[in-house]
Amino acid sequence: MSPSNSPQPFVEKLAASSEANGSLLCIGLDPEPASMPPNMDVATFNRAIVEATSDLVCAYKPNLAFYEALGMAGFQALRATINCIPEHVPVIGDAKRGDVGHTARAYAKAMFEVWGFDAVTVHPYIGRDSIEPFAAYEDRGVLVICRTSNPGESDFQRLPVAGEGGSLPLYERVALAVREWNTAGNLGLVVGATHPDELARVRELCPELPILIPGIGAQGGDLAASVRNGTDHHGRKAIISSSRQVLYASAGSDFAAAARQVALALRESMREALAARSSGATP
Amino acid sequence: MSPSNSPQPFVEKLAASSEANGSLLCIGLDPEPASMPPNMDVATFNRAIVEATSDLVCAYKPNLAFYEALGMAGFQALRATINCIPEHVPVIGDAKRGDVGHTARAYAKAMFEVWGFDAVTVHPYIGRDSIEPFAAYEDRGVLVICRTSNPGESDFQRLPVAGEGGSLPLYERVALAVREWNTAGNLGLVVGATHPDELARVRELCPELPILIPGIGAQGGDLAASVRNGTDHHGRKAIISSSRQVLYASAGSDFAAAARQVALALRESMREALAARSSGATP
Repeated sequence: MSPSNSPQPFVEKLAASSEANGSLLCIGLDPEPASMPPNMDVATFNRAIVEATSDLVCAYKPNLAFYEALGMAGFQALRATINCIPEHVPVIGDAKRGDVGHTARAYAKAMFEVWGFDAVTVHPYIGRDSIEPFAAYEDRGVLVICRTSNPGESDFQRLPVAGEGGSLPLYERVALAVREWNTAGNLGLVVGATHPDELARVRELCPELPILIPGIGAQGGDLAASVRNGTDHHGRKAIISSSRQVLYASAGSDFAAAARQVALALRESMREALAARSSGATP
Repeated sequence: MSPSNSPQPFVEKLAASSEANGSLLCIGLDPEPASMPPNMDVATFNRAIVEATSDLVCAYKPNLAFYEALGMAGFQALRATINCIPEHVPVIGDAKRGDVGHTARAYAKAMFEVWGFDAVTVHPYIGRDSIEPFAAYEDRGVLVICRTSNPGESDFQRLPVAGEGGSLPLYERVALAVREWNTAGNLGLVVGATHPDELARVRELCPELPILIPGIGAQGGDLAASVRNGTDHHGRKAIISSSRQVLYASAGSDFAAAARQVALALRESMREALAARSSGATP
């Protein structure tokens, strides 16, 4: 079903880039012109960020909202951005799509065939057949929103749901469903960094799934705890994402060099947390 | 906060178009080139559909998936489509967006300022602060997905959630939350047509909210039951949506005339159902 312009499965491509760069860091490419150096276009900005950091990351993650907000110029910038990312670094389209099956097929085509993303984020609410059209592209990753890092996270995600295993919060039901639906081995989860105990719980429920972990930096999540609680038992399969902290480290002409410094520091902190975890030390 | 290129609030604009055209029918503008007459571009197709039906509908609803699947040409077709819809007919951007607050602001800007939609559909899962940036545009409508019409609907939406009022299915918790959050009077719900009893329950919980009701036609929902159970006690505030049944009534050069015939028949069936409802008759 899927075209073969990205023959290496997402999970393998992610493992390879993470290994090659010694990194769990994903940089969120979320362009906000007001935070960028004056008179700089988005594609030029993103290219400079990618050139300064592509040896330090496991993945890049453009969030489509920031491109859509710029109209046609935004779509052109997204195309240029995807094109400038080295082939061996996976690109996650953070689109948070979710619609019924017939329409989900159109979204999957947009994300994987038009844009060519290696993976995409999707909403769980509509259910299994809203996720399957994405998962049918077996070489691509499908990361299902499970637990977010925002004030409204508890409105629905923590509601107590009765069923097998007793009362569990809704986000754990989502994690268990995604684990069950992962027949092609290309599903994963999105779990924010701001509640390390809940991240640990999701990792316990889903030892095999890749977990995208946004929320470090601007949203206040704890990086060391994200590494400790989000990685699998090999210290892998956590995709720890930072956006503004890296992109806007400087608003001057040295923005790319400043971004590199922040990315280096984040990678180093992640390595230290991994080393401490492997040695059994507690923070 | 919101720009004033659409100064009439969505709910008023919807009421006026529904009254003027005597219709609860919303046509979903979901272009699928394989179902269209040969060698016809999407913008031309949509313009012909709009010209043939704009006196019969309360709203149009382009689903963004079908435009995104066509790449840049799709975005241009969406722009041309929005531009050709008469000013007095509201346009609902069926985008099913949903992201954390900072990013939701970018999506709201895209939907309301870049595209200029009168209303948009959004996911509930991330919670209140993912909806507020849309609702901050007080002249626009924000329709929150509550209950969908697809095989996977029961995966999460019907899960039993404990809390005030005892155990309620998740979709009822969503309906109650949206009712509570509707401080600016511009929120609504999306409830599929395939479970009329559940549509009635949501209408009972939320007597004031507009409800977008997809799922008649191709998805098998009952039109008369949707009118009976989805309208408010004035026989209003139901937006009953059909896409493929209208758009692809004929695959030949008479497609627009055929679409008009189906739209006329749907409007007439809705009127009959409303009349039966008003007279207290049961089907």
